[in-house]
Amino acid sequence: MSHAKTIVLPYASDFHTHLRQGDMMRAVTPLVKAGGVGTALVMPNLTPPIVTGEQAMEYKARLEELAPGVQFIMTLYMNPKLTPEEIHKSAKLGVTGVKVYPSGVTTNSDWGILEFEAYYPVFTAMQEENMVLCLHGECPSDATKNICIMNAEEKFLATLRKLHNDFPKLRIVLEHATTKAAVECVKELGDTVGCTITAHHLSIIVDDWAGQPHNFCKPVAKYPDDREALRQVIKEGHPRFFLGSDSAPHYRSAKQGEKPAAGVFTAPILIPLLATLFEKIGCLDYLENFISNNGRKFYQLPIYNDLSKLDDSQKITLVKCNDNEEFVIPQVYSVESDSVDVSDGGRQIVPFMAGQKLSWKLQ
Amino acid sequence: MSHAKTIVLPYASDFHTHLRQGDMMRAVTPLVKAGGVGTALVMPNLTPPIVTGEQAMEYKARLEELAPGVQFIMTLYMNPKLTPEEIHKSAKLGVTGVKVYPSGVTTNSDWGILEFEAYYPVFTAMQEENMVLCLHGECPSDATKNICIMNAEEKFLATLRKLHNDFPKLRIVLEHATTKAAVECVKELGDTVGCTITAHHLSIIVDDWAGQPHNFCKPVAKYPDDREALRQVIKEGHPRFFLGSDSAPHYRSAKQGEKPAAGVFTAPILIPLLATLFEKIGCLDYLENFISNNGRKFYQLPIYNDLSKLDDSQKITLVKCNDNEEFVIPQVYSVESDSVDVSDGGRQIVPFMAGQKLSWKLQ
Repeated sequence: MSHAKTIVLPYASDFHTHLRQGDMMRAVTPLVKAGGVGTALVMPNLTPPIVTGEQAMEYKARLEELAPGVQFIMTLYMNPKLTPEEIHKSAKLGVTGVKVYPSGVTTNSDWGILEFEAYYPVFTAMQEENMVLCLHGECPSDATKNICIMNAEEKFLATLRKLHNDFPKLRIVLEHATTKAAVECVKELGDTVGCTITAHHLSIIVDDWAGQPHNFCKPVAKYPDDREALRQVIKEGHPRFFLGSDSAPHYRSAKQGEKPAAGVFTAPILIPLLATLFEKIGCLDYLENFISNNGRKFYQLPIYNDLSKLDDSQKITLVKCNDNEEFVIPQVYSVESDSVDVSDGGRQIVPFMAGQKLSWKLQ
Repeated sequence: MSHAKTIVLPYASDFHTHLRQGDMMRAVTPLVKAGGVGTALVMPNLTPPIVTGEQAMEYKARLEELAPGVQFIMTLYMNPKLTPEEIHKSAKLGVTGVKVYPSGVTTNSDWGILEFEAYYPVFTAMQEENMVLCLHGECPSDATKNICIMNAEEKFLATLRKLHNDFPKLRIVLEHATTKAAVECVKELGDTVGCTITAHHLSIIVDDWAGQPHNFCKPVAKYPDDREALRQVIKEGHPRFFLGSDSAPHYRSAKQGEKPAAGVFTAPILIPLLATLFEKIGCLDYLENFISNNGRKFYQLPIYNDLSKLDDSQKITLVKCNDNEEFVIPQVYSVESDSVDVSDGGRQIVPFMAGQKLSWKLQ
């Protein structure tokens, strides 16, 4: 398959994406499918965050209107007011997961939690409902403990181990792993612990976001050896590691100011980007498992293991680029708005690797 | 002294500063003295770089015109064309040091070197002339060796050890140390090895430049434990560690674009900033040694160990701020230019800690 000029795959499943609200939502949601994704787990960190099953279903309906044919998987934002009753109610409404942000570590995470024990009744309800705990696995920075953004993930792993130990049947996803330590930890843990990996963390290291705000995200990309560990666990074909793009659009004006926002926007180029990376790393044969089967198994969704049974609307075709077939990533994606002056270009979104060529494109 | 409302000190000596050229030079050079500095070692990374003694002396004359009363200490930019003959000539003209940038690690370092052995004849001439080797101590990033901006300094220390071993009488300054490893290495080496520390590296860690381009510089600020090691070696009163601010102005437009330039601008607030930091760290008594005596001893300049022998033009007075005496760091410093449209604010320089209060000000 790795030498073919085209590759046919099922529409990908992206188990971590940010689709925002308002103008931004209207601009980026249709781009999910354009990037080759047919199933998208949506993060709940809106303003205000999604905290009830009803809010999640309302949000889902808005997204479905914007992107017909895409299956949206909904999550709640863990917070002190979330009750076991709301978990049971949300599960019945169709909510799949709950996202936990340790306090203060990423965009809109002011509502995050510090003391996980206080949430054990909620975790118990989630385990009963077979819901998934989506963990932003970073400790808040604390100079007195030598915790900073470079080791915040590694320092969090003890908490992951404890949660898994205390809730062995609760499915937990360590989101957007960035370190060798995280990869090794997840591999050691049981089958109820999965791990998402982003396209950009397979691509960049700390050098690439230092002085390049459009590559800056949380968790930050780390050392070359960490990136290599992410690549190796994919090359091993480990079944509990799968795609969660953490595609996170921000306006150009928010990325190029005095305090650039954290987030890398990959949604509209996601599967061509991954195909390009996997080919470079030498594991194009594992692309289908990574972008579809592994995650769908973990999330207990139907597996597309027989492509001949899918109709064309369920499949994507990647085409190898050549001199006649180029795919240059757009410099910007525009956000339309009636209410805001867009003359300064502030309401544009700069994608990851803007202006660069990819080796694969979608037909 | 630490409880006094005022502190009288000699004008400080800053053994690492960037004064640029053209409009930028005209704007920032007068601010050296405003920041409390009377002796400034000037970096040679202009465009094109300063590579001969004559160029250094011409540059010095321009700086002296802009900042009467400041003593400028001049350096050359190490490059493949620099000869032992030029070293001898430059020494006679009054050049004090040669700056070495390993290739590709910082602003305007394309002319830097990789193979230090090729420069041993130059180092030999420098040792004969009692000149100082100013080392930007970082290895170029190399993913295959797991070298990136976070460990580039630590990985460089073997080269520092080798240079010191091969040229034990050559005075070498490891510039702008940022790591515990560098501090420990310099302490272990002989009396001919000194080390500069910046004000900003005493203040910030990696979290502070991630998503804050005005705090972004090379070498990047690192872990909390690294910052603590820099603070501790000052609290120990170690005589071979001294001030080199690495104040490095860039236009706001160059700091807030798609690829923010590396450099933090501290010159106009330098000594009040250091007094504020030293008080916070609890070592205000060591301020005089750090900003004057230690570095001047290493550079074999006259020591101001009897303040009563200095006239007022040689001294500065720090005043403790209170409710009536505030020092708020300006939001910007403007660069005047006849030739460029300044309407977009691009030709402003944003200082370190813009808009924040300091606990000490200069009288």
